Amino acid sequence: MTIQQPYVLFLGDAPDPLAAKVAQGIKDWRPGISVGQITLPGCKADMGLNNISVNEAVSLGAKTLVIGVANRGGLISSKWMEVLKEAIISGLDIASGLHNLLRDEKELVDLSKSNNTQLIDVRVPTINYPIANGKKRKGMRCLAVGTDCSIGKMYTAIALEKEMSNMGLKASFRATGQTGILITGNGVPLDAVIADFMAGSIEYLTPDNDDDHWDIIEGQGSLFHPSYSGVTMALIHGGQPDALILCHEPTREHMRGLPEYSLPSLKELENMALKMAKVVNNNARVVGVSINTSSMKKDEAMEYLSKVEKEMKLPTVDPVFTGTKRLAEELANF
Amino acid sequence: MTIQQPYVLFLGDAPDPLAAKVAQGIKDWRPGISVGQITLPGCKADMGLNNISVNEAVSLGAKTLVIGVANRGGLISSKWMEVLKEAIISGLDIASGLHNLLRDEKELVDLSKSNNTQLIDVRVPTINYPIANGKKRKGMRCLAVGTDCSIGKMYTAIALEKEMSNMGLKASFRATGQTGILITGNGVPLDAVIADFMAGSIEYLTPDNDDDHWDIIEGQGSLFHPSYSGVTMALIHGGQPDALILCHEPTREHMRGLPEYSLPSLKELENMALKMAKVVNNNARVVGVSINTSSMKKDEAMEYLSKVEKEMKLPTVDPVFTGTKRLAEELANF
Repeated sequence: MTIQQPYVLFLGDAPDPLAAKVAQGIKDWRPGISVGQITLPGCKADMGLNNISVNEAVSLGAKTLVIGVANRGGLISSKWMEVLKEAIISGLDIASGLHNLLRDEKELVDLSKSNNTQLIDVRVPTINYPIANGKKRKGMRCLAVGTDCSIGKMYTAIALEKEMSNMGLKASFRATGQTGILITGNGVPLDAVIADFMAGSIEYLTPDNDDDHWDIIEGQGSLFHPSYSGVTMALIHGGQPDALILCHEPTREHMRGLPEYSLPSLKELENMALKMAKVVNNNARVVGVSINTSSMKKDEAMEYLSKVEKEMKLPTVDPVFTGTKRLAEELANF
Repeated sequence: MTIQQPYVLFLGDAPDPLAAKVAQGIKDWRPGISVGQITLPGCKADMGLNNISVNEAVSLGAKTLVIGVANRGGLISSKWMEVLKEAIISGLDIASGLHNLLRDEKELVDLSKSNNTQLIDVRVPTINYPIANGKKRKGMRCLAVGTDCSIGKMYTAIALEKEMSNMGLKASFRATGQTGILITGNGVPLDAVIADFMAGSIEYLTPDNDDDHWDIIEGQGSLFHPSYSGVTMALIHGGQPDALILCHEPTREHMRGLPEYSLPSLKELENMALKMAKVVNNNARVVGVSINTSSMKKDEAMEYLSKVEKEMKLPTVDPVFTGTKRLAEELANF
């Protein structure tokens, strides 16, 4: 699943900036790859890119229109259709992470066939992944694991990739979810992979590499989240991480979507994740902690980070607030 | 996915008894549900049932022809087609766990449509399973977990169901693999379920039940098998087991299919499985050990069972050699 770049970002009629968070992620993490943005009347999101038409996007070299906006329910709005059809006719591929698949829209499918363009639903695996063979691969791998879902694992991983690149280290963010795939242009939509092939898909995503190259693998779910723990387990065993980073959000009151379940402690996460990682990589170790302190005041956040650092005896950062430099240094000196 | 009973067992041209092990399982564990067997010239397997024709099967009340034989590669042999077509024309459903799907055989599909019969590929989920909600359900659940794949988990579970039924206890074997599904007529083909829905499919399989009813859930994979550990994890968190049984085969030299990986000890399995089970069920405990001693001499086996029993301080059985009565008693007195 590879999405041709450069992109043009479609913001549609996004009612607020949050509705365009996929576009925002692409803009933030891959600032060079979009030639502009396309908006519809009423759009309240702005990536700070030039507002352009489909024709202008094509003449600026765009290869793919990325749907960077999400509706309630993940539907493809009828208001968007005119632009999407124009894009296909102009030779652009369309990429989407929406629940409502492009391939289920007959008009778009017919048009893309006759114009020989691609409709790319990043939610749907297009590769027959192998069953994992557990063999040791060359190069280094780092995986972010969390006390819960949606706790900052993707942000931590992609921020760490950027930091390492800035430091001149070899690092690749490896996407395992829709947003990450749209940002990087490829990856594995792990939550949609068939059970038997989950770990194999991660081996496929993180193949042999230079000895000093780090794959920074996007985590999914949590070993302690009953709905998705199997996905996390497959990431640990398929990813064979050398380094683990523990992610946590200190104000979360219960596991996401499960009021009956409380979060594990960072210590419990460390013990469990490390034990499971050692099954496939006896050298695995936890190198740091990444805390999402966005719901805390600055003082409170600083205090919390330093408390965790003392308790865990591990470099503890907030990727937004303090940056990920100390984690990057841990990997550089691994 | 429910397969109509009674069955007629199709043994085809099975070159040896092992090739018909699915039929053998059905015969052994559900002795009453097959009206007879259908063989082709050269068949070397025999379930001890009457050899009958398709017509006789229908007049004896059969509802489904079950393909109880497997070829190398899981193909549907051209030699079988005549009988399969005759069965469909006579109004029988066909059920198969083969890799080569019935639904991919156009001739069979067309015929089953015009005769209004079902082609049931038990490898393929037909239900949109929910995402697991982690809510506590009524009734009791027991899960067999293993130090490796293919180590006796299904056998242990189904033998335990039989033992408990004989003792007048309420117990249901819950199938999670092809053979188990064909034996019981329903279940979840867990290895083919999409990642996000794995745990939810097991919640679906083991719903609320009587307070004194035990679901005996068929295990899959192993927490320590890098290719399939995610599937095992989903079983533990979806199944919310009250009781765990540890399964092991003492002569296995490495993890199945992975020469680089050695098996964990029973103690390691106990610690890990129990810790993960307690995430969803704080009352979970390990109630016994089930050893497959089929590769050992009788004396050696007895000695091994008693050694494990001492070390683990848990009732230790071989379901074939000693039976599962002691495990059933543990559940009765849970």
